[in-house]
Amino acid sequence: MQLITLTTDFGLKDPYVACMKGVILGINPRATIIDISHEISPQSIAQASFVFAGAYPYFPHGTIHVVVLDPGVGSARKAVIVKTPEALLVAPDNGVLTYALLPYLAGDQAGSKIRLSPPLEAAYIEEPRFWRQPVSRTFHGRDIFAPVAAHLSAGVPMTEFGPAASMINLLSLPQPHPGPEGSLDGEIVHMDRFGNLITNIPGSALVAGRVRISIAGREITDSAGTYEEGPRDRPFALVGSSGYVELALAGGSAAFFLQAGPGTRVALFAE
Amino acid sequence: MQLITLTTDFGLKDPYVACMKGVILGINPRATIIDISHEISPQSIAQASFVFAGAYPYFPHGTIHVVVLDPGVGSARKAVIVKTPEALLVAPDNGVLTYALLPYLAGDQAGSKIRLSPPLEAAYIEEPRFWRQPVSRTFHGRDIFAPVAAHLSAGVPMTEFGPAASMINLLSLPQPHPGPEGSLDGEIVHMDRFGNLITNIPGSALVAGRVRISIAGREITDSAGTYEEGPRDRPFALVGSSGYVELALAGGSAAFFLQAGPGTRVALFAE
Amino acid sequence: MQLITLTTDFGLKDPYVACMKGVILGINPRATIIDISHEISPQSIAQASFVFAGAYPYFPHGTIHVVVLDPGVGSARKAVIVKTPEALLVAPDNGVLTYALLPYLAGDQAGSKIRLSPPLEAAYIEEPRFWRQPVSRTFHGRDIFAPVAAHLSAGVPMTEFGPAASMINLLSLPQPHPGPEGSLDGEIVHMDRFGNLITNIPGSALVAGRVRISIAGREITDSAGTYEEGPRDRPFALVGSSGYVELALAGGSAAFFLQAGPGTRVALFAE
Repeated sequence: MQLITLTTDFGLKDPYVACMKGVILGINPRATIIDISHEISPQSIAQASFVFAGAYPYFPHGTIHVVVLDPGVGSARKAVIVKTPEALLVAPDNGVLTYALLPYLAGDQAGSKIRLSPPLEAAYIEEPRFWRQPVSRTFHGRDIFAPVAAHLSAGVPMTEFGPAASMINLLSLPQPHPGPEGSLDGEIVHMDRFGNLITNIPGSALVAGRVRISIAGREITDSAGTYEEGPRDRPFALVGSSGYVELALAGGSAAFFLQAGPGTRVALFAE
Repeated sequence: MQLITLTTDFGLKDPYVACMKGVILGINPRATIIDISHEISPQSIAQASFVFAGAYPYFPHGTIHVVVLDPGVGSARKAVIVKTPEALLVAPDNGVLTYALLPYLAGDQAGSKIRLSPPLEAAYIEEPRFWRQPVSRTFHGRDIFAPVAAHLSAGVPMTEFGPAASMINLLSLPQPHPGPEGSLDGEIVHMDRFGNLITNIPGSALVAGRVRISIAGREITDSAGTYEEGPRDRPFALVGSSGYVELALAGGSAAFFLQAGPGTRVALFAE
Repeated sequence: MQLITLTTDFGLKDPYVACMKGVILGINPRATIIDISHEISPQSIAQASFVFAGAYPYFPHGTIHVVVLDPGVGSARKAVIVKTPEALLVAPDNGVLTYALLPYLAGDQAGSKIRLSPPLEAAYIEEPRFWRQPVSRTFHGRDIFAPVAAHLSAGVPMTEFGPAASMINLLSLPQPHPGPEGSLDGEIVHMDRFGNLITNIPGSALVAGRVRISIAGREITDSAGTYEEGPRDRPFALVGSSGYVELALAGGSAAFFLQAGPGTRVALFAE
């Protein structure tokens, strides 16, 4: 199996995603292509990074992941291939890989250009012979990222695509930090389809039975182990499937109820 | 071919569906995965059941179908594998398979826990060795249903996954019944993308040229064999591709025109 | 590889697309099925034609493309298989293939029934032995187009499916033409997910640094080579990835800013 995943903000109504798939299959007819998401909000690098990282750990060893969130397409921004112990990641060098790379990095490295060290390696994508010609200035997903991923899946070594990259860019991620009254202060980083609000506070901070969370002018004082166990009429906290504290509302949308979303601040008080 | 279909309410913007696919392909790289729908309204078991049953008969013998509509995830609800003469169905035991199983059941069995009899067989999903570890309490699609489907597709017999299940839960489906003035009274069970309203009244009840249908305070008196043949300015009835009476509006949405949707009552008068 | 693409207006919430895939894989388990788009506006033949043509050139030689935009399903409209030097196209004969076929036609042929000449060939779809039985009157995607594509992918020659078709229908496409004050007058033919407005004016008409475009009561006087290079606060023109003049707004939606969309007139003045 030669597995390639795609994460973009291209949506599914336009031909853009299919163009990438056609190009890949033209180069490597044996590739299996899996969509992670194409419904990322336009040009939201942080959202793409979070969503991609939510799926990345569940793919088999050797998968090639292509992430095209690329507001700087055609500019001087570089493009990279990053090799992890699990996979090859192909993306513009704009920080979109940040969340996926966090487990391999010391925690304080996020928020800047970082120097890669083993087990991570990277190469810049600079060799035009692996690109689709002519290369448009506005759609490198089709003309550069798709063919590079296809050639990688067909066995071309990473080192063929360009010079080694020793540094890559990371996003400056919001980090939870101690608040004035003994709280742990974080924020909502993702709202899912169900209106669940996923915070950047690790699940280990949630102590069952002793919950006080302040968000959007309200207090949440319930927690549960599952969606089913929560109260019926008010939001509650649980540890979501991504391992972070999540706010949910049984049979409804916590986001709508709380009028909150990505960026909303959350304070967790250890009573 | 080892074909696995997926039906969920997870949507396509979040990483959830991709997580399931990654887990499946990690266990069985030869699996072919086809999406039936991930746009089921959140936690709508009845809608998922109807949509899944609309695609189920068109898949080849031996397909493995995974249906994850699972508001009770992590609670005491059981999970099942149901074997039909055509396929293996993997789902929570909450009635989501009802519409697909109707053709194998006596009509009056819907609406309760039923005892399975040949040709149907079932097993509970209870053997943790086929699950992804650790199992989260909130995402059994990824940690239980996906790996179970993958192992089934790789040839593990159904009996390995847990004890035989002799009973499964069904939804209490709305059944059309005779109305006071000689009508057949049913309801809308699905609104499709085009705004076509699909009823639970079998197509055999529609007699061409003698139509009177009462819905949402209006009367429909036209029928047609195809969408093209209907009148241009008012809704009409036809037998849809699922075999049920359907209300449509040429070049428009019958649902919008009639301000009707799932649950709206419909009376068909045999003139 | 036996590659089949699908373009429809069926959406992704209903079972319709999955029905087609199930039927295809039941006939040819080796087929690889790729979605181009199912989010075409209901019954918009022109939009489907444009979107399909945007992906068509990027698929490998020998791909089978199925395009089901079929408001006339079940009526007397014919269905065709068109052979190009690159691919086989399967669709109702209602003009939905127009944009994809333009490169093979003399420019003035659009807008009417045309006589096919080499390299194009076509056959009507008339042989019921390749269809799924019984054939519904409302869903030929499932009962005719899907099985025909599957049999084609399995190697059945085009000539088996029905008599040769010497004529096919084309859409009357809007063509840019010289305007009163020396302008080139065209229109918006597509709005993509980002709100970019794609015109029918070829990119060669855009002369960098000398732009004046009139649209929706406004003037656009900037152009750029990439989205990144454009001004930050007002729409600008560029040559999009499809080769046509496109109007964009950095970090926003040109369509929303200009209150424009498909059908809006555009005049490009060569200063």
